[in-house]
Amino acid sequence: MGRGGIGSDGVSGGGGGVVAGELREVFEKLKGKLSEINSLEGVRNLLTWDQQVFMPVNGGAARGEQQAVIARVVHAHQTDEALGEYLEKLTVQFGKLQELGFSQLEIASVREAARDYTRTKKKPVELAARAARLESTGVGAWQKARKENDFSLFAPVLQEWLEIVREEAAAVDPELDVYDFCLDKYERGATRKSLDPFFASIKNPLIELLRQILKKREEEEGNNNPNPQFLHTKESFSGSFSVETQKRLAKKLSEELGFEYASGRFDESVHPMTINIVSPFDVRLTSRFSETDLSAGILATLHETGHGLYEQGRDAQACKDGLPASRPPGLGLHESQSLLWEKQVGMSAEYWEHYWPEVLTNFSTSLPNKTAEDSTQFHKAINEIKPSFIRVYADEVSYPLHILLRYEIEKGLLDGSLPIADVPAVWNQKMKEYLGIVPKNDTEGCLQDIHWGLGAFGYFPTYTLGAVYASMLLKTAEKQIPQLRQCIKEGQFKPLREWLREKIHVVGSLYETADELIENITGTKLDASCFLSYLSRKYGALYDLSTPAAETKADVANAS
Amino acid sequence: MGRGGIGSDGVSGGGGGVVAGELREVFEKLKGKLSEINSLEGVRNLLTWDQQVFMPVNGGAARGEQQAVIARVVHAHQTDEALGEYLEKLTVQFGKLQELGFSQLEIASVREAARDYTRTKKKPVELAARAARLESTGVGAWQKARKENDFSLFAPVLQEWLEIVREEAAAVDPELDVYDFCLDKYERGATRKSLDPFFASIKNPLIELLRQILKKREEEEGNNNPNPQFLHTKESFSGSFSVETQKRLAKKLSEELGFEYASGRFDESVHPMTINIVSPFDVRLTSRFSETDLSAGILATLHETGHGLYEQGRDAQACKDGLPASRPPGLGLHESQSLLWEKQVGMSAEYWEHYWPEVLTNFSTSLPNKTAEDSTQFHKAINEIKPSFIRVYADEVSYPLHILLRYEIEKGLLDGSLPIADVPAVWNQKMKEYLGIVPKNDTEGCLQDIHWGLGAFGYFPTYTLGAVYASMLLKTAEKQIPQLRQCIKEGQFKPLREWLREKIHVVGSLYETADELIENITGTKLDASCFLSYLSRKYGALYDLSTPAAETKADVANAS
Repeated sequence: MGRGGIGSDGVSGGGGGVVAGELREVFEKLKGKLSEINSLEGVRNLLTWDQQVFMPVNGGAARGEQQAVIARVVHAHQTDEALGEYLEKLTVQFGKLQELGFSQLEIASVREAARDYTRTKKKPVELAARAARLESTGVGAWQKARKENDFSLFAPVLQEWLEIVREEAAAVDPELDVYDFCLDKYERGATRKSLDPFFASIKNPLIELLRQILKKREEEEGNNNPNPQFLHTKESFSGSFSVETQKRLAKKLSEELGFEYASGRFDESVHPMTINIVSPFDVRLTSRFSETDLSAGILATLHETGHGLYEQGRDAQACKDGLPASRPPGLGLHESQSLLWEKQVGMSAEYWEHYWPEVLTNFSTSLPNKTAEDSTQFHKAINEIKPSFIRVYADEVSYPLHILLRYEIEKGLLDGSLPIADVPAVWNQKMKEYLGIVPKNDTEGCLQDIHWGLGAFGYFPTYTLGAVYASMLLKTAEKQIPQLRQCIKEGQFKPLREWLREKIHVVGSLYETADELIENITGTKLDASCFLSYLSRKYGALYDLSTPAAETKADVANAS
Repeated sequence: MGRGGIGSDGVSGGGGGVVAGELREVFEKLKGKLSEINSLEGVRNLLTWDQQVFMPVNGGAARGEQQAVIARVVHAHQTDEALGEYLEKLTVQFGKLQELGFSQLEIASVREAARDYTRTKKKPVELAARAARLESTGVGAWQKARKENDFSLFAPVLQEWLEIVREEAAAVDPELDVYDFCLDKYERGATRKSLDPFFASIKNPLIELLRQILKKREEEEGNNNPNPQFLHTKESFSGSFSVETQKRLAKKLSEELGFEYASGRFDESVHPMTINIVSPFDVRLTSRFSETDLSAGILATLHETGHGLYEQGRDAQACKDGLPASRPPGLGLHESQSLLWEKQVGMSAEYWEHYWPEVLTNFSTSLPNKTAEDSTQFHKAINEIKPSFIRVYADEVSYPLHILLRYEIEKGLLDGSLPIADVPAVWNQKMKEYLGIVPKNDTEGCLQDIHWGLGAFGYFPTYTLGAVYASMLLKTAEKQIPQLRQCIKEGQFKPLREWLREKIHVVGSLYETADELIENITGTKLDASCFLSYLSRKYGALYDLSTPAAETKADVANAS
């Protein structure tokens, strides 16, 4: 597909010469406006990054003011009448843009920019202000509710968010179901209709796989002569590990995956994050490290590196021009890149076969009894399956079940079928049903995540979409890249990275939805079967399960 | 003097009730606008700070775009019609504001805001854009000229700056002499008429003091039995000093001077700087360190700490409200704070008597033969008088002579009496006359500073105004603070810091010029005599001069 406008200026269909020239001029003006918005978004991100990483504690209140002023400035630019006029002129000719010499990327950018403009214009200013206020008071109430372990302190916030979101949906896209409106914000085109069967297809296979693993663990641990691999839990690799050394190693690993430090940074923050000041030229990763935990900080770094590689892989010229089609099409696909590098690569046996000697060199005194052969122990330890109350600590098998229960609760809240007051009870009942454990209080239960305090309903499903996209992509990559597993074993990540760059990163939002892009790459629409197969194979082997339950069922589901 | 509007709302003179209430409302709206501008200026500063300290190298071009967009946004806010209306309403009643219950700080803020608004409005947008372009190309040309040691590459930039500055002066303040217009940008109220006699009063005494010191050095060095103190040059304290240790020590010293790290940061950058993200809540210092030089990085840190203490000492509520009267009245006074802490405190015998043991503890292996008694050696070494071609490396006695020659050249360029092509020759001739040395090329001569490449004519004098203000302030402080020198010897800086805070930092621009504020504090208008006395006393003692030449002449000059 063509990209950028090189050579396309002045091209015109028969008789369309004047229109083409005029439209090209309008498009250039549009680019000017869009690249201003892009610059301002980057400024906003710098304010956030600095706040999380380096800002002194007393700077907080003034930073809030700066964020509010910049948000108003961004909004004014996004709803600028001139921007609207340019878009109007281009969209009335939308069907003809291709024959008038516009590239696919330019056409997609007109589509995206027009959509952004219309939606921002339709959102009442008063509602946006109300949402901004509730974002800050809502998080405060959420923190207080957690501290006092009292859901009733948070319930009114949830109530107001539901009202705001319903009003917003009614104003911006009244045709759409309100939860679909929420989903669409984070994952374009995702709907209850598409996600209900998707989640249905993973629910039982995962519950069953988890049940089998736990049963096997129980049997082995009760065994007089247990299989030694069950001894390799995360705890068996706890100890005292210099944070400075962990950081140095984590940074090196991110660099070897291909993150470019001439165009990025790596720092510490309380919550690991990736933030683009200006993609692909200035992309910043953060991670956090614990003295007692060898793997968490390193794996979090690999996760953020995956996000960072996506941002650094975007189309440089299109980014410079502020073209919105250079953006990722949704959060699910973004998450697929972080999960692919963290879980599918960074938690694989091959990866640690390669890097284990380096861990030993760096932490020789903390790991006195380990030898070069112990990489498999480490691999097993970091892949330990152990249900947790807390989503962010969840293993790969449990994680989608954490998401499923949130999806079901969100849906119920937004269609009104679930009263707010019932959330704690439903949460706990679903935890019991899906994961077999019940949190001892709401702080470890339905109050654990910040998302609903920010009104971010519809966000959670993108985590599991990401996991599934990652499996689908890796399956295709393994077919198209010779010796991919061998490359990983040798620490050669360029083939996979370049493949992802070409197939995904530079493509941006040329397709309107991630699902279309995924189908284009893999030949298949969203489908959990290869994710389930991957889990069955991996954990079937690690836990020596006789029947890879999930895989069988998924293959059946897939065939039907 | 009263500060903030507490209790003043609703106060009204006889019959002025309605006006007072209305004006108060207008003033509140004005504050809203001003605090937005203030927030945006802070954002701009964050972009600059990040660029100098942490930005990855490939982020440069996009950062330039972000800076340009924010500059336009700031300009739009500064010239907002509503802002103009509020100011109009307040300034027509300016003479009555006090009786209508406005505080001095509020009244001064109206004065400052109206001045800013009028001047920004008058400056043609096209001229501002031309200046912005030349700022970037001018610095490029300056760098190239330096690299190739070819003044002719820089001359056209100088020519264009002169044109721009003349046009700007004609548009903004046609009554004012054009160089006075330049001076006024950095030091309100400074004029050729005030600075000519000021510089005349320091020129001969400093040339004479320098001559005496150099003569004495020459005699002693040629002596068969030299005075050992002449052996204590900066070089005698060169060696290998861990940069990490220097940074730790420098940070500790800044903290002990009173810089608050809950409201600030300390980092490294190529050019040491102080930048206020939001004073007094978020103020950031940087310094640079060299492995081979023990004192430069530490002294640069003390210098920046002086600037930082000013910013952290500003009136918090007035800053929050964005009131421009909370700002320092000019660069000279700002520089007085950095020089006071760096030179008058940080390069004093008392200061190093206190901190020398700490230096020894931190650098015991790098300073193997030094003992607790050697603090006087170190004090002499850091105060070594040795003319340099380069302003930023100049000692306290030579520095004003570097400034004087720049002042004379700038004046000549702007009044047309000095052709651009003659700058190199005049520079070298004045170097010979004032400092007794001639640079071997223009890179070490008239191309050494960035200021003219940025069109910043009129900036240089503020360095020497700062040095003189610092002496005037310290002289008064010594009268008003009991045992000030003893405090410094004991590492007690709070009395001096609090005195400066009360007399200067919180006062902001309540007075329109620094000169008025200085007179109010010291009882004297700008006068170099106590600066000259300070230099004579200090270096007369260090270099064992029989006749403290400068002091005598200055006292005569002062008495006449």
